[in-house]
Amino acid sequence: MDIERRLEELNIQIPDMPKPIASYVPFVKTNHYVYISGQGPSVNGENKYTGKVGKDITVEEGYDAAKLTVLNVLAILTEAAGGLDNVERIISLRGYVNSDDDFYDQPFVINGASELLIKIFGEKGQHARSAVSVNSLPMNISVEIELIAETKI
Amino acid sequence: MDIERRLEELNIQIPDMPKPIASYVPFVKTNHYVYISGQGPSVNGENKYTGKVGKDITVEEGYDAAKLTVLNVLAILTEAAGGLDNVERIISLRGYVNSDDDFYDQPFVINGASELLIKIFGEKGQHARSAVSVNSLPMNISVEIELIAETKI
Amino acid sequence: MDIERRLEELNIQIPDMPKPIASYVPFVKTNHYVYISGQGPSVNGENKYTGKVGKDITVEEGYDAAKLTVLNVLAILTEAAGGLDNVERIISLRGYVNSDDDFYDQPFVINGASELLIKIFGEKGQHARSAVSVNSLPMNISVEIELIAETKI
Repeated sequence: MDIERRLEELNIQIPDMPKPIASYVPFVKTNHYVYISGQGPSVNGENKYTGKVGKDITVEEGYDAAKLTVLNVLAILTEAAGGLDNVERIISLRGYVNSDDDFYDQPFVINGASELLIKIFGEKGQHARSAVSVNSLPMNISVEIELIAETKI
Repeated sequence: MDIERRLEELNIQIPDMPKPIASYVPFVKTNHYVYISGQGPSVNGENKYTGKVGKDITVEEGYDAAKLTVLNVLAILTEAAGGLDNVERIISLRGYVNSDDDFYDQPFVINGASELLIKIFGEKGQHARSAVSVNSLPMNISVEIELIAETKI
Repeated sequence: MDIERRLEELNIQIPDMPKPIASYVPFVKTNHYVYISGQGPSVNGENKYTGKVGKDITVEEGYDAAKLTVLNVLAILTEAAGGLDNVERIISLRGYVNSDDDFYDQPFVINGASELLIKIFGEKGQHARSAVSVNSLPMNISVEIELIAETKI
């Protein structure tokens, strides 16, 4: 599988690695495992899709926020693995959805991230997942995603 | 330790593996580690114990929901490990409790899962754990549990 | 690196290992990895800094709560690794902040934990991190932190 070519075919561009907004690092690599810090739907450091899904933004916008968020995750994974072709597989993804107390469509929102991973990596993109609501997120972003991946090297 | 026999003694029946409700897989196995996707208290695909613990259902019902949820986790672990006798140990469990903003009994709810794991696996069932509230969960389930386990093979 | 000497220089005293309040263990060690159960800002078993950050306590008090919480995490890590000098590195930290629905300063609160880890361990203390709000925590503690570390032995 040649992921770089696949990204071109899908017309997907991996952004620059987002800078941490606090006292932590974007990822830690230990042996073949990469732990990626919680990311949000930012573009060039500016947050998109702020507010609560189902109240301030629609489920469809939440889906797009999750898609945008996972691009930032992939920017970090590119750096951590030395290119996405070195990714052995995506292991797990945890998605936090900023929502009201009666929002039940977290899985559809986080699908924005999961479906893009599977589109890019195929079977190696399939992952264990949890999707939950939280009552608020940093800087009022709508979605936060953290991920663990395995690398070939 | 013969877990299958222990399950019989305890009169516990592991259900069929629940189907994911979105774009992810029930588990990922990497080396000897199994990461299991967030599960809820469903029976044959139907959610039991919906609503917020402490408001819509009691703490005792929440305890039963956690117990039911971990049975679904064990169904997946059975498949991932090729039988529960191949489980080396339970590593960690994270429990999310759907509750109001002034609910403080998350540990008692998630004990429904932890106590069953220890009953079944003994010392190997002892695990690191976090229990937190969230303001909502997918399809309004009352409890969501994710787990990491180590296998012998 | 001599962590024990560093702790003396910083005048930091690692407390006794807190006792679990439910059916789980403070940590699980598998190979070189230590998974630590969610901890709170307790001192000798008594919870400090209860309530919601930004409402019942200030962000600065939340920062202090995170600092106090990570001392309890380090007490457990000391036991798990046989002394903090055996810590190879901190891998990941997840911080849950008990807050209202319009609180956006989770990163500043959890910095209380992250900055202490970096002060103590230097580069080995840098970690992947997620910081999210939750609408409630066990016994109304203001902060809960879980952590994964790698040990040399």
